[in-house]
Amino acid sequence: MDNERFTRQIDFLLELDKLKDVRRQSRIRPSLRRENSAEHSWHIALMALVLGQDYGEDVDLFRVVTMLLLHDIVEIDAGDTYAYDPEGYKDKEAREQAAAERIFGLLPHDQTQALRNLWEEFEQGQTREARFAHSMDRLMPLLHNYYSQGTTWKTHGTLKSQVQKRMAKIREASPELWQFAEDIIDKAVRQGFLAEG
Amino acid sequence: MDNERFTRQIDFLLELDKLKDVRRQSRIRPSLRRENSAEHSWHIALMALVLGQDYGEDVDLFRVVTMLLLHDIVEIDAGDTYAYDPEGYKDKEAREQAAAERIFGLLPHDQTQALRNLWEEFEQGQTREARFAHSMDRLMPLLHNYYSQGTTWKTHGTLKSQVQKRMAKIREASPELWQFAEDIIDKAVRQGFLAEG
Ligand SMILES: [Ca+2]
Repeated sequence: MDNERFTRQIDFLLELDKLKDVRRQSRIRPSLRRENSAEHSWHIALMALVLGQDYGEDVDLFRVVTMLLLHDIVEIDAGDTYAYDPEGYKDKEAREQAAAERIFGLLPHDQTQALRNLWEEFEQGQTREARFAHSMDRLMPLLHNYYSQGTTWKTHGTLKSQVQKRMAKIREASPELWQFAEDIIDKAVRQGFLAEG
Repeated sequence: MDNERFTRQIDFLLELDKLKDVRRQSRIRPSLRRENSAEHSWHIALMALVLGQDYGEDVDLFRVVTMLLLHDIVEIDAGDTYAYDPEGYKDKEAREQAAAERIFGLLPHDQTQALRNLWEEFEQGQTREARFAHSMDRLMPLLHNYYSQGTTWKTHGTLKSQVQKRMAKIREASPELWQFAEDIIDKAVRQGFLAEG
């Protein structure tokens, strides 16, 4: 065993505990407590496994799952930015790049590179895998919001047009999943969970 | 889109929310709150990705990661059984089999089969992938216990010999990781986190 290498790996893994205390805006059922970013990552990784078989055409699901497990770890330093918060988005990228530098940097050099590259690929959203991963990261909060009667949308006065814009990422991955998302948005408006406009 | 199939997939995915409220005995840092089984699954899936490269010889890591993401979902019905609780272990298997039947059964038939088979493979612990997955599921709680000053061990009066027996799974996966685990156990005894015996 290469002790220095192993120590770096364990330090990185122990650091990950902190993502379990980063709270998102989504609420989980039945308790309606706010979700944390670690359990969220687990959930959408499984979503990718289940839906990827049918809707992830020509997608390498192992890459997608790995991306999703990693995609939020920068929030350990940068925090979760609410999807519809324009203020928070201004310096989001700078905060997250600094976080990526520090957190992936805990690993041995080759793994720093490999995992950070995968995270960058996700952030850039250009490859098939990154697009499919993004669609999972969009679809689950939509479901959470809808099935918790729009609690988070109402708190923030979120508008239908904002949600539609954000969900456009789903269209890039799968027209069928996009159709499903549009139906949910329409139902949310009709049921008063989401404001028209 | 096959609507019936899709509805089953979404029902299964929404059911998974409940794993986020199943509490384990492990405590996470820095808050020392008890960990839930969903975030635990996320954590050891990443552990497998990081350590698998060096210690998972001839192991298909995608299978390992998928197993780990799934391995605890039966706890939605069966609850978490503390590793050193002989009473809880008596009917653990029956409770978990019933849970697997119901929860994997929410999925479309082909996915019920595929995911349940993978869960059974993990449970049986015979394949290389299942053994490596088990070693991750053992190693992380050991680290959590050690780095939280043995809080959980002390609460339950857990003995060194019990921990050693449980950690034997690590030896089957990697002699090097087993050596590391033995060192941690020895340090835990010396520091009074774990009782000799
Ligand atoms: Ca996210």
